[in-house]
Amino acid sequence: MNGWKNVLIFGMGLMGGSLSLAIKKKFPNIRITGVVRSESSKQTIQKKNISHDVLTESEFYQTRTFSDFDFVVFSTPVRSVIETIPKLPKSGTTVYTDLGSTKETILTAVNSHFDTVHHYISSHPMCGSEHSGPEAAKEDLYQDKLCIVTKPEKAKPETVDLVRSFWEAIGSWTLEMGEKEHDETLSYLSHLPHILSTLLVNTAIANPVTKKQIEKSTKPITGGGFRDMSRIAGSNPEMWLSIFEENRSNIFNSLNDYKIALEEIIEIFNPNRNSDLEKIRSVWEKSLFAKEIIQKHK
Amino acid sequence: MNGWKNVLIFGMGLMGGSLSLAIKKKFPNIRITGVVRSESSKQTIQKKNISHDVLTESEFYQTRTFSDFDFVVFSTPVRSVIETIPKLPKSGTTVYTDLGSTKETILTAVNSHFDTVHHYISSHPMCGSEHSGPEAAKEDLYQDKLCIVTKPEKAKPETVDLVRSFWEAIGSWTLEMGEKEHDETLSYLSHLPHILSTLLVNTAIANPVTKKQIEKSTKPITGGGFRDMSRIAGSNPEMWLSIFEENRSNIFNSLNDYKIALEEIIEIFNPNRNSDLEKIRSVWEKSLFAKEIIQKHK
Repeated sequence: MNGWKNVLIFGMGLMGGSLSLAIKKKFPNIRITGVVRSESSKQTIQKKNISHDVLTESEFYQTRTFSDFDFVVFSTPVRSVIETIPKLPKSGTTVYTDLGSTKETILTAVNSHFDTVHHYISSHPMCGSEHSGPEAAKEDLYQDKLCIVTKPEKAKPETVDLVRSFWEAIGSWTLEMGEKEHDETLSYLSHLPHILSTLLVNTAIANPVTKKQIEKSTKPITGGGFRDMSRIAGSNPEMWLSIFEENRSNIFNSLNDYKIALEEIIEIFNPNRNSDLEKIRSVWEKSLFAKEIIQKHK
Repeated sequence: MNGWKNVLIFGMGLMGGSLSLAIKKKFPNIRITGVVRSESSKQTIQKKNISHDVLTESEFYQTRTFSDFDFVVFSTPVRSVIETIPKLPKSGTTVYTDLGSTKETILTAVNSHFDTVHHYISSHPMCGSEHSGPEAAKEDLYQDKLCIVTKPEKAKPETVDLVRSFWEAIGSWTLEMGEKEHDETLSYLSHLPHILSTLLVNTAIANPVTKKQIEKSTKPITGGGFRDMSRIAGSNPEMWLSIFEENRSNIFNSLNDYKIALEEIIEIFNPNRNSDLEKIRSVWEKSLFAKEIIQKHK
């Protein structure tokens, strides 16, 4: 990593743009080339001076090759990462990674593309935002965030250490996880919450009395609870549709688990059932305990 | 309000304690008496110098009457507010309010207790926190928060203005709402989100793969999304059980509405159905639009 001179960031949205700013700060000697889809993104990158060079995809494929770079980061939606993997040179010293939010389909593509030892390590930095696009890029996006690292079968073990060191140099902390465990765990800890947040907002506005009160007020009738619970609602549809495609069955299972929990609590609230609301106390206590485990509070 | 000399705060948890600190700051000439349930709370109030005087409930009833005060604030759970209302003097100039999170049952108690014009105006300051108790009290808790004010049938109209002015002097902004509209609206904007947050945490920890990955990591495997979505989970069970008792049927309806939205999205994810995940785009777009209406962003 200390010898790296040229880094390619393929996809310069919030994540790619922020990564470019972070690398510029921590490794001032590295020259960063960004690849974007549109001319307008190219202009934003240039205007905001996010990377040293910036090319559209077609310019990139006409004038450069992946082997020109020491490190290549794919920060496009997962589907597009998967479509690019078969174009990668099968040998060489270039280290590859991606910022994909799901792992199983990427690892399948990597495992089937490379025949021998290779340098592709998949990454998932957990530092999304309800914002998107290079306009929202900021150099501390990766600071103190978790980056999950997943090793494909034939990847060189030392390359895992190298990629972890890179993320740690950028300010993240790292954790290695298998692709199946990753996708199942993330369906519960990330994908499910995004769907629940989105449905909450839609359910609230669909209630006519609530809608009328909201419309009558000049300021929001919401406390911190609703505000926090709705922050991620509806964010970044392109990215989320991509995640949903890649992780459909895990998300389906997490939604079904949630539905069972919801049905149990609905039955307690049923005014015709005369059930004891005190039962909710154990649900509440269980969640406080679980929250401590999940958030690692002592 | 400018002539007020003695204020009673009945219940000195997070809300009552913070209110006392706010009044001390804005109205240094007002003497505040706090009423608490336990000796240990009394000591906390004294040690942290939250109110000028502090009495246990039995000390209060033995030595003082509500008429000794210009303004009385009930900041106990709603059920206890309702049990106290029949003890209030039916005449006099004392202004009464409460900080109850639900309104219909309080208004029923007020309407049936007072025979003639009175000065009880119900309030709901929306500034909860996942913390509770007087230890967590802070003088800016009410700053820039919404306080919903509800007028009982026979309350003097000028007293509504007085109570609104009080809240505005404390730094809140106010909105008048009928009791039925309040309870239905809040079930969607506050009570439902608290239940959803609690169930999310419980659903995540119940998945064995997720639990194992969490246990293997020394730091939380969660991004900002899960963190925000779980902040209010399991908080303050006493207060929430009280809210659930008072607003059961509205919450039941909001949970059922949510379940319908959840079932619709589950069907889209069903891998056996081969349905089009693109359908989710409209759910996502609807929620962005709804979020702007609810949060009053332009």
